[in-house]
Amino acid sequence: MNRAPIVLTTDFGLEDPYVGVMKGVILGINPKARIIDHSHYVEPQNIAHGSMLLSTSYNYFPDHTIHISVVDPGVGTERSALIIMTPRAYLVGPDNGLFSGILGKYSDDSRSDTANIHVPAGCKAFRITNSEVFLTPTSDTFHGRDIFAPVGAHLSLGATPSELGDPVESVLGYAGPDLVITEDRIVGEVIYVDHFGNLITNISNTLLTEDANVIVEMSGSCIRSIHRTFNDGNTTTPNEPIALLGSNGYLEIAVPNGHASRSLLLSSGDQVILYKSH
Amino acid sequence: MNRAPIVLTTDFGLEDPYVGVMKGVILGINPKARIIDHSHYVEPQNIAHGSMLLSTSYNYFPDHTIHISVVDPGVGTERSALIIMTPRAYLVGPDNGLFSGILGKYSDDSRSDTANIHVPAGCKAFRITNSEVFLTPTSDTFHGRDIFAPVGAHLSLGATPSELGDPVESVLGYAGPDLVITEDRIVGEVIYVDHFGNLITNISNTLLTEDANVIVEMSGSCIRSIHRTFNDGNTTTPNEPIALLGSNGYLEIAVPNGHASRSLLLSSGDQVILYKSH
Amino acid sequence: MNRAPIVLTTDFGLEDPYVGVMKGVILGINPKARIIDHSHYVEPQNIAHGSMLLSTSYNYFPDHTIHISVVDPGVGTERSALIIMTPRAYLVGPDNGLFSGILGKYSDDSRSDTANIHVPAGCKAFRITNSEVFLTPTSDTFHGRDIFAPVGAHLSLGATPSELGDPVESVLGYAGPDLVITEDRIVGEVIYVDHFGNLITNISNTLLTEDANVIVEMSGSCIRSIHRTFNDGNTTTPNEPIALLGSNGYLEIAVPNGHASRSLLLSSGDQVILYKSH
Repeated sequence: MNRAPIVLTTDFGLEDPYVGVMKGVILGINPKARIIDHSHYVEPQNIAHGSMLLSTSYNYFPDHTIHISVVDPGVGTERSALIIMTPRAYLVGPDNGLFSGILGKYSDDSRSDTANIHVPAGCKAFRITNSEVFLTPTSDTFHGRDIFAPVGAHLSLGATPSELGDPVESVLGYAGPDLVITEDRIVGEVIYVDHFGNLITNISNTLLTEDANVIVEMSGSCIRSIHRTFNDGNTTTPNEPIALLGSNGYLEIAVPNGHASRSLLLSSGDQVILYKSH
Repeated sequence: MNRAPIVLTTDFGLEDPYVGVMKGVILGINPKARIIDHSHYVEPQNIAHGSMLLSTSYNYFPDHTIHISVVDPGVGTERSALIIMTPRAYLVGPDNGLFSGILGKYSDDSRSDTANIHVPAGCKAFRITNSEVFLTPTSDTFHGRDIFAPVGAHLSLGATPSELGDPVESVLGYAGPDLVITEDRIVGEVIYVDHFGNLITNISNTLLTEDANVIVEMSGSCIRSIHRTFNDGNTTTPNEPIALLGSNGYLEIAVPNGHASRSLLLSSGDQVILYKSH
Repeated sequence: MNRAPIVLTTDFGLEDPYVGVMKGVILGINPKARIIDHSHYVEPQNIAHGSMLLSTSYNYFPDHTIHISVVDPGVGTERSALIIMTPRAYLVGPDNGLFSGILGKYSDDSRSDTANIHVPAGCKAFRITNSEVFLTPTSDTFHGRDIFAPVGAHLSLGATPSELGDPVESVLGYAGPDLVITEDRIVGEVIYVDHFGNLITNISNTLLTEDANVIVEMSGSCIRSIHRTFNDGNTTTPNEPIALLGSNGYLEIAVPNGHASRSLLLSSGDQVILYKSH
């Protein structure tokens, strides 16, 4: 039996009973399962957002974690359902690119386009086929409850992926918003706005360094340095935005003790340009 | 000891500490209790909504689940507090009709009116009287914390309902919005709008069939067929609403990849008419 | 090993993955930890609100509970990180006054001002110094994940505070909004608005009695008696506000079956005056 947690990531929100019912189904199969909510506020049907959250949080969950992830605009169509084994975790969910951010950690191939991508070396993928574990009747609109929850629960009881599905060599990739990287600039965008109003971009911290001599431009506003914290003494003007190396691995725009999204009138999809200044 | 989960359903929301405190009380009595949040966003003090969520989710929770359910506009008045044993579960909460949807699964009587209804055969009901298990002082405004949480926790430790209360023969029913069913039409209404904007009605899927030749009319808009999924290939116009057999057992109105409530300007309480076309 | 729960109180909200990631970190260290969400909707960076919620809920959690509490506007600055042992619980979080409400239960000193306060008799405080248990790299913006979660998890495994930090004699206090108490009146304010629209004030129930002959005045509206419940038969006018002895220990203003904040156009920070009438 796998004692690692089952981690739920969905776009279901917490207003409705959908998440609670999935937990009921899991505990009906494995009464000892430990279930954690990662996030249920992936932007509805936004696969890029789900993929980013999964890949940035991935390393903080224990080894052997079973991720049940449901952002599934194609539910009820012919899209496949997957179990993917990585060196650290099991991933259960629709075959629509939702796991491409995680797979990208094991391959350079995974964000290249939206077509099929090869399963990286060290990982294995299975198309879920064993309908004996599905709830019946199996709805066409709520596979989280009827397919993914029972599949994840059976994995937690020790079932092997090959008992639940058939191996596949490739899965669907997903092209998130591309970075444009040239000699003197990086053009990215805001992926989401967090609870504090901070703007989380798709510009990886690894493309920057703390002491980088850069200018960040967003819709006319400019920030002339990268900060280390929300309060590192470099900011003197109230409501002045700062750019910082975010804790999730990506550049963030924040207004210390304020709400950057409201102050700057920026939200997901808006462009962020980083100039390497001379 | 009962190893099934304790399932919480309330209208408390998650912004306040009310739900967390109930969990603290439960774990103070039974440190091994497994607690699941079903929903805390029942519309405030809307017993019909709570009753519907409980009855549609009921079968997805494990046998012997202990439901602590608190939608309780009459807290602090003379209304009774109940433990109901059904063939599958224990129900703990106020005697105000909140469990009438579940009881209706065992009887035709339970939704007939708002007066007392007989406890169905196979079920037993108890008026909670054993104040020794209540928290003291016992508030008049938060029985979820002071009465229902400790009662549920003691049930999970193996206490019997008869140790906690006195048997009763009848409980309060609750008349949800009635369906009007005639030869050529069914008139129902929207019960709630979910996180995706889907309109959940009170027209049971069992009154329909997938291939039914029907027209659904809502406030001037018409839908001419019942769909199986959000994406079954029958929809060609963007933003066109569809009707489908919802995963919770009731007819839903959805806009694929859109938000039906905002598109159609419909919300809970609005009328939905289903014509059997000829 | 400590079998009491780990209780999380933050201002992170539930929209983002921050809380889920903290749980992942905790379970990676102690796979058997039981984690409860107390509240994640402390008003962003509002230490007074966090302190009040912690102190009013404190007694409802089991003995030996490990509170990980993060309302941390100074994250990344030189502010200390604390473990406090009280007779009932372990408190883990920033040294910014967040625990002053709890410490005030053991001392008259703790709410006196925002300067350093002595650790009350019966309690012990430790400045967290053992960076071996921190996640590495340790971010400057998310100590909840990188410091407080692992420290709390190690406490739950049986580590002692002195293994994780150095004893200190004083911690930062925090002056919440003061009550002005004179012979004929008490002037307080609304601390927060709950999910039902009830206005929770900072006027302790212990300053009142149920049969007190008082007038409550808020922005021109007057209430002439203190009620025991939302529905105690004394209210006859729909939408008439009532004052009641709240279940969390403080005076609340409510509109039975309504939303006091919207009806009265009052919210946090607004003044509430209680006159002892003659």
